[in-house]
Amino acid sequence: MELLDGKRIADEVKQEIAAEVTLMIANGKKRPHLAAILVGNDGASETYVGHKEKSCSQVGFKSSVLRFPETITEAELLSKVDELNNDSDIDGFIIQLPLPKHISDQKVIEAIDPKKDVDGFHPMNVGRMTIGLPSYVSATPDGIMELLRRYKIETSGKHCVVLGRSNIVGRPMANLLSQKGYPGDCTVTLCHSRTNSLTEVLRSADILIAALGQPEFVTSKMVKEGAVVIDVGITRIKSETSKSGWKLVGDVKFDEVAHKCSYITPVPGGVGPLTIVSLLKNTLKAAKREIYG
Amino acid sequence: MELLDGKRIADEVKQEIAAEVTLMIANGKKRPHLAAILVGNDGASETYVGHKEKSCSQVGFKSSVLRFPETITEAELLSKVDELNNDSDIDGFIIQLPLPKHISDQKVIEAIDPKKDVDGFHPMNVGRMTIGLPSYVSATPDGIMELLRRYKIETSGKHCVVLGRSNIVGRPMANLLSQKGYPGDCTVTLCHSRTNSLTEVLRSADILIAALGQPEFVTSKMVKEGAVVIDVGITRIKSETSKSGWKLVGDVKFDEVAHKCSYITPVPGGVGPLTIVSLLKNTLKAAKREIYG
Repeated sequence: MELLDGKRIADEVKQEIAAEVTLMIANGKKRPHLAAILVGNDGASETYVGHKEKSCSQVGFKSSVLRFPETITEAELLSKVDELNNDSDIDGFIIQLPLPKHISDQKVIEAIDPKKDVDGFHPMNVGRMTIGLPSYVSATPDGIMELLRRYKIETSGKHCVVLGRSNIVGRPMANLLSQKGYPGDCTVTLCHSRTNSLTEVLRSADILIAALGQPEFVTSKMVKEGAVVIDVGITRIKSETSKSGWKLVGDVKFDEVAHKCSYITPVPGGVGPLTIVSLLKNTLKAAKREIYG
Repeated sequence: MELLDGKRIADEVKQEIAAEVTLMIANGKKRPHLAAILVGNDGASETYVGHKEKSCSQVGFKSSVLRFPETITEAELLSKVDELNNDSDIDGFIIQLPLPKHISDQKVIEAIDPKKDVDGFHPMNVGRMTIGLPSYVSATPDGIMELLRRYKIETSGKHCVVLGRSNIVGRPMANLLSQKGYPGDCTVTLCHSRTNSLTEVLRSADILIAALGQPEFVTSKMVKEGAVVIDVGITRIKSETSKSGWKLVGDVKFDEVAHKCSYITPVPGGVGPLTIVSLLKNTLKAAKREIYG
């Protein structure tokens, strides 16, 4: 069993991006610039945006955060999005979700210029990804692809079972791994809460991607000997053994599953660290006009 | 075993559309208008466009065909697309594919206003379909959904195996049937040329959708007793028993598979007749501004 060390890979990719930015600046190019829109005072969102700013500075990107009160109207927010769309210094921007209830997440996402949609949530980018065209792939699926690629995990012809059909993880994962090329060419099964004989389906997986959001759902009997297990879940649960009284666990019961796997991601330190890196990669692509010219 | 009679369902849907158009006209609304762009003199394309015109007239739509010589430049064609985008009498239009080699199919598709893209090939519509938003779904997948719906075939929790990962059939099928709702909530496996142990995978299907384009590929041993089999393939092969010396066959070896199935589509007369009907449905939605307001 080998651990898929997301932290190490994330550091590796960041160094590569930093090197490229240094070269861009040396060649007289503009510094890539990622902006974030943050509405309200959600603690988790603040933390996440803080991580993004730190990561931007690590790779030499310019970053900015536009903060708005919870009371901002949808029309005002849409007009801000329009401003960012037309701000030539900003290469890409994200809107920290969820937004307050009086604002439609979907409407705001669709207002983003697809060229600057580095979160990859705009239907235009989802559609391009689905049909195999270059696009901004959203952070978690892109991070998983990076992990498979860097560890040179064989995917062609393998049976990949994706557990969870969310629009931000499960579904794009299924679409990406069934595409031609590497990582890809998998036979992909997409499972969810309605799946019959779930244990049997999961046990047929050569590559199992758990993205259900249910702590320690995947147990030993659901995993085939030698499988590659990617655990996307991350939930804080009470713990009697940790000092804080809490611990982070994934969707996989790590202690009983790990020894059966050829590769497995730890939680934390698996997929998580790669998500911000994917956002940086997309921002670099945006700065280089790689997707839309 | 029951035959899924696509011809009958297509007639049924056409009658419903015709009734709705009559009502629209009675209420002083504009007649829905579908336009088609046809480049060059391909016989099959001419036949297909002819069928579309006939179907439009059957349901009371206005239809028009814009013919251009094979020598039209990409720029000229893009400018025609732009004209149609801005022609308020035209609700939806399609471009008969493939285009001549000097023109990029994808570039022309992306030039269509998604609001008028009744073929559902624009990334914006593909993306919306993928994430479960209302969209123009392309003809074949939509036709299959209609068939499942009208025959009230149970789909929730069923294992649906899609054979073939094309962007116009296999992939959208997989995305649609794994969505929440009906028809949907299937556990979906997407198979293709790289799939290992294909026979075994196909034999696990409660619903099997064959869209590989290989005549009579699916044989009896690949189909589970009681399965629902949807055959998307249609190929003309030589025949010693038919008068013309030719016959049409699907991707499924009908004679040996049919008796094992609970439901199966004949070829021809299964999925085929529903494709033009789906285009009519999309045009009606466009005329009613149902998707994009």
